[in-house]
Amino acid sequence: MLYVNACWPTLVDMTAGPPPRRSDATRSRILRSARTEFAVAGYDRATIRGIAAGADIDPSLVMRYFGSKADLFDAIVEIDLRLPNLAKVPRRRLGETLVSHFLTRWEGDPADDALLTLLRSAATDENAANRMRGIFRHQLVAALVDIVSDPAEAATRAGLIATQMLGLALCRHIVRLPPVVALEKATLIEFVGSTIQRYVTADLRGLKC
Amino acid sequence: MLYVNACWPTLVDMTAGPPPRRSDATRSRILRSARTEFAVAGYDRATIRGIAAGADIDPSLVMRYFGSKADLFDAIVEIDLRLPNLAKVPRRRLGETLVSHFLTRWEGDPADDALLTLLRSAATDENAANRMRGIFRHQLVAALVDIVSDPAEAATRAGLIATQMLGLALCRHIVRLPPVVALEKATLIEFVGSTIQRYVTADLRGLKC
Repeated sequence: MLYVNACWPTLVDMTAGPPPRRSDATRSRILRSARTEFAVAGYDRATIRGIAAGADIDPSLVMRYFGSKADLFDAIVEIDLRLPNLAKVPRRRLGETLVSHFLTRWEGDPADDALLTLLRSAATDENAANRMRGIFRHQLVAALVDIVSDPAEAATRAGLIATQMLGLALCRHIVRLPPVVALEKATLIEFVGSTIQRYVTADLRGLKC
Repeated sequence: MLYVNACWPTLVDMTAGPPPRRSDATRSRILRSARTEFAVAGYDRATIRGIAAGADIDPSLVMRYFGSKADLFDAIVEIDLRLPNLAKVPRRRLGETLVSHFLTRWEGDPADDALLTLLRSAATDENAANRMRGIFRHQLVAALVDIVSDPAEAATRAGLIATQMLGLALCRHIVRLPPVVALEKATLIEFVGSTIQRYVTADLRGLKC
């Protein structure tokens, strides 16, 4: 363990940057602890003190590496949805492909739950909500522009997809409604995949089955 | 304005209950302020001090009336979904009826946003998430039992409905994704109504269109 006196920040040149030795390991340890803390507590409740405790270092060192809770949060939630190249997916399988992609990310081992962390925080934090809108626009809408029949409809279709996929994340992983938690991944891919398929390909002036 | 000295709580018998005069008006004023504070800030960030300021009274009086922030929150979010009698709705209109019902409640004048307040809080507060599971089970699942072809499927169907409706609430009212905010109510009733219709009535072993 790296022991750092609580008075340490007042004694050193704060512009000197992170210490040259062990810096990557320390940085990784802070990020790992922050990821857990933000995921469990959400942005509002997470504390630098708690993150430091989880990383087994002094809180001042967390601030030295990342500047603020907000900056640390930004470093955690650099979210790349890593959407597959939808142009190469058979058209009738777009819905199930998208649902399968998100479920695999949220429920993989290790789970890539940065989006869930951001979602949890976005409910009460405007900064997090703004990041979510950016991810939506730059990644989901952008991916749909290439594959929808009318690019002018890409944003609306992406919006409808978001209502279903974020609602699924919310009910399965955050609010944890028992029947939604109980559904098998394959069943969700089929049920919810049909909805997403419709939002991607059906005529927007008559989405009825 | 009812002026209450900050020292007041130490000078009176705290077991005596609310003051006999103006108590209903004060109670209403506290509830009104709390509703705003919880809706804007979410459970974690809302403070008794802020609620008291909004009601123009001393914080000690808020505690005297409601005991704690948690109890005050419970008083605010007594949520009755007030679902219409679904057994009287023509079967093919169940989807649009449900979507219309929720949109009208969320976007009416005055908006009945208790469910949105609870949703915002449920993202980071297990107590709020638990209340949400209770509302889901006692109201949505219960309403579906009477109208689905196989009552054993009511919970699963209600769960699927929740993923879509809570996701719509999240994207339109909390994260505020621009294309979702921009959609007309009538359009949403049509688009999302088709999804809900399918979750209520389609064969669960093959929900495809």
